[in-house]
Amino acid sequence: MGCPFCEIVAGEKPCYAVYEDSHTLAFLDAHPITEGHTLVIPKQHYQQLDEIPDEVLAHLFKTVKLLVVKLKSALELDGMHIGVNCGEAANQLVPHLHVHLIPRRRNIEISWDRRTVPLPGELRHIQEKLRKHQN
Amino acid sequence: MGCPFCEIVAGEKPCYAVYEDSHTLAFLDAHPITEGHTLVIPKQHYQQLDEIPDEVLAHLFKTVKLLVVKLKSALELDGMHIGVNCGEAANQLVPHLHVHLIPRRRNIEISWDRRTVPLPGELRHIQEKLRKHQN
Repeated sequence: MGCPFCEIVAGEKPCYAVYEDSHTLAFLDAHPITEGHTLVIPKQHYQQLDEIPDEVLAHLFKTVKLLVVKLKSALELDGMHIGVNCGEAANQLVPHLHVHLIPRRRNIEISWDRRTVPLPGELRHIQEKLRKHQN
Repeated sequence: MGCPFCEIVAGEKPCYAVYEDSHTLAFLDAHPITEGHTLVIPKQHYQQLDEIPDEVLAHLFKTVKLLVVKLKSALELDGMHIGVNCGEAANQLVPHLHVHLIPRRRNIEISWDRRTVPLPGELRHIQEKLRKHQN
């Protein structure tokens, strides 16, 4: 049955965490679309955005804003896509609400269809960069 | 100079509005990716998500949630993409923060590259459907 993101929150599954507070967690996507691709989740399990209470939703997007600032600055980005896929028909692969932050750099095209497999050490390197960076 | 979304908010430019309150406005995208493609904006002008105060951001996503419920129910959707493009490098075409709600239906593929031109009356028809619909 287990939800992989609940397992991450419970510490039963490893992740490259880049931010955590009482209600939210942010970690690097294991199959990034671009370098620095990050997921922000509520720690409590909700499948869809319309199930989440207003105050938790407000907290979630406050964390998203914080991470947008951090990623832009630490990774010197030119832009970012923020996205939520709601439901299997919209390619929601994990049934625990998550917000994608997908970094963009000028003149670098991205492919939505194929996810790159990160090089060994790449995620660890980005995690360090984000952890060390002071906004 | 003028911002097209500020002109819509000021009533100087027409739109197919589907929701409005004191701080936010939702209207149909003039070049929808899928039927029912809706934009949600803060009425005040902010270019990027990281410029918006926390309380306005909270209000914006409360409206997004409300519209997700309304669209899913009124248009009988199977899923939805929620997205914000931050910056030109991420295809932000209008420099006024806006949240895309892109309906998905099972077994109907979508193309991100080409926007369809709506048939005459199509947007009006969807607007009516959403306005009449009680959640």
